[in-house]
Amino acid sequence: MKIAVLPGDGIGTEIVAEAVKVLNVLDLKFEMESADVGGAAYDKHGHPLPEATLKLAREADAILFGAVGDWKYDKLDRQFRPEQAILGLRKNLGLFANFRPAICYEQLTHASSLKPELVSGLDILIIRELTGDIYFGQPRGRRSAPDGHFPGAEEAFDTMRYTRPEIERIAHVAFQAARKRNKHVTSVDKANVLETFQLWKDVVTEVGQQYPDVKLDHMYVDNAAMQLVKQPKFFDVVVTGNMFGDILSDEAAMLTGSIGMLPSASLNAGNQGLYEPSHGSAPDIAGKGVANPLATILSAAMMLRFSLNQPQAADRIESAVKSVLAQGLRTADIWSEGTTKVGTLEMGDAVVAAI
Amino acid sequence: MKIAVLPGDGIGTEIVAEAVKVLNVLDLKFEMESADVGGAAYDKHGHPLPEATLKLAREADAILFGAVGDWKYDKLDRQFRPEQAILGLRKNLGLFANFRPAICYEQLTHASSLKPELVSGLDILIIRELTGDIYFGQPRGRRSAPDGHFPGAEEAFDTMRYTRPEIERIAHVAFQAARKRNKHVTSVDKANVLETFQLWKDVVTEVGQQYPDVKLDHMYVDNAAMQLVKQPKFFDVVVTGNMFGDILSDEAAMLTGSIGMLPSASLNAGNQGLYEPSHGSAPDIAGKGVANPLATILSAAMMLRFSLNQPQAADRIESAVKSVLAQGLRTADIWSEGTTKVGTLEMGDAVVAAI
Ligand SMILES: CC(C)[C@H](C(=O)O)[C@@H](O)C(=O)O
Ligand SMILES: CC(C)[C@H](C(=O)O)[C@@H](O)C(=O)O
Repeated sequence: MKIAVLPGDGIGTEIVAEAVKVLNVLDLKFEMESADVGGAAYDKHGHPLPEATLKLAREADAILFGAVGDWKYDKLDRQFRPEQAILGLRKNLGLFANFRPAICYEQLTHASSLKPELVSGLDILIIRELTGDIYFGQPRGRRSAPDGHFPGAEEAFDTMRYTRPEIERIAHVAFQAARKRNKHVTSVDKANVLETFQLWKDVVTEVGQQYPDVKLDHMYVDNAAMQLVKQPKFFDVVVTGNMFGDILSDEAAMLTGSIGMLPSASLNAGNQGLYEPSHGSAPDIAGKGVANPLATILSAAMMLRFSLNQPQAADRIESAVKSVLAQGLRTADIWSEGTTKVGTLEMGDAVVAAI
Repeated sequence: MKIAVLPGDGIGTEIVAEAVKVLNVLDLKFEMESADVGGAAYDKHGHPLPEATLKLAREADAILFGAVGDWKYDKLDRQFRPEQAILGLRKNLGLFANFRPAICYEQLTHASSLKPELVSGLDILIIRELTGDIYFGQPRGRRSAPDGHFPGAEEAFDTMRYTRPEIERIAHVAFQAARKRNKHVTSVDKANVLETFQLWKDVVTEVGQQYPDVKLDHMYVDNAAMQLVKQPKFFDVVVTGNMFGDILSDEAAMLTGSIGMLPSASLNAGNQGLYEPSHGSAPDIAGKGVANPLATILSAAMMLRFSLNQPQAADRIESAVKSVLAQGLRTADIWSEGTTKVGTLEMGDAVVAAI
């Protein structure tokens, strides 16, 4: 079991260290190797995704990823910015299926912006297609507008694209995930406006016929953005494209009030996967030892389950996390009156102890 | 002052009738003419936006629009579906500037999904570009994939496009609106991924230099979807493209908990405008006399202010709406214990009486 460890920028190093610590007490044999990624890699090697890092990632069974990004790279050309590392990994490894759970932990319900009754027990799984759509569609660029409202003016453009097989495979992922949950898939599209999402809707409907035990409904993306706020518990599995998934998964994560708790997985057809917390690199608190490592620790659990075929080890980590929450231990982001505030290291140690 | 009255489908007829009633007691001379639009127009004339309706709209100073859509048109070819009427009006009349306020009325704060302290006093103005972006960008369609992951497979595609002058004009609208408010513009983009939104960000930044008194910040769309949930009062004016604006304006509207109260305006360069409630046609409650007409009545107030140059009349309507709320009158959608439930007609009558 070969794991590529890519801590990245900001709090990345601190939180990944805790996840590694947890993996190391599981009595499993891992081969772990670290490499630079993101801004840290740009600083040392002139590129956010150096060849050596990509090679390590390709050869691993799974990638444990921290976070990338810092304001100081904002002025760089897009190709050198930290985020390009993550887009490059997705593309090069074909990580098309992004799992982003939005779970509201009972003890943390109060941290949500929403009224407790709307989010208590919330458990949504957003499945976002991750290698297609307008993120990677060619052609794209700048040019003189060939037509439109201002022909000849400076114009920028991108292309949204989806093929039938791309939609089919992500739809299968969603229906199969729903079978292990509440058997309800909501496919989010904008078929009333976009050709791409009319095909999306047609294909998801077709694939759905192979899963008669799973209830399928379709929702326009604007309505989905509303219903997530109005009645989040309506949702079980949400499947959508790369762009809409980017927006809705972050909205859903924030509904829980504790994005510092949410892991994510990005898988390819061979179950090789990249595992990372749903939150970012938080440069403002980097190096202070206060970041919440639980999302990354839970990402390691997802890694054990999805890519390394160690479901029992995954369970052990997840139970340990529940138990530290039950003990009242909280990092600053999830702290509230009456609980014990701990730092990044102490939280990692507590999870290790609970295992 | 020529007003084209387009009630449309579902509750459209009922709510527009109340707005017309209110306009008629203002002691102003309007020339009002009605026409079919949406599903109603398709049923009678075979097209959701008949030539005669478009002509009436073109020749009017303003359009008072109800709502369009009904499940029964879902199986029609996209070009015949009710929503095409609204897209056609936007495009043909060049209604590029969409104003969508998300206001939380003090008496209705409890109706929000969010905790009261997060939304009480909320007043966001979303300015959405409405005639560009992936909504109208050519080319679009279905084809055999020329390249990508599955060359030769059936593919659908759309084109996202913005030219510099399109971005400039909507940016000016946003900065000018912010000057009359809290002088804070948040421009929402996805410059880290999309060429189109790198140009967007560059141009908004440039235009912003002409408004040194207005604070400008930039936010990625996924982060904006989160911050709307986390700290909605951070925002004053939000300016964004057509697609992101569709999603974020609905999310913001739902935060207030009373989408039945929210008007909208869509203006062109000559201040000709289309005015409609932010909510939809609600076919499930159509014809029952229970729909909330206040969003449409408030849309008529926006029409008086933006297109008909009657700001005092607009003020009178807005004060009257506040006064009926203060009287405790509520339609079913905003009703709560201790207030008086009224129907569509009674609510319209109450506004008329308050004027
Ligand atoms: C960093 C950025 C390119 C990325 C995306 O848009 O996919 C991020 O927002 C995410 O959701 O993983
Ligand atoms: C009906 C639909 C085409 C429309 C849009 O997407 O613009 C609607 O959602 C809106 O926001 O006015």
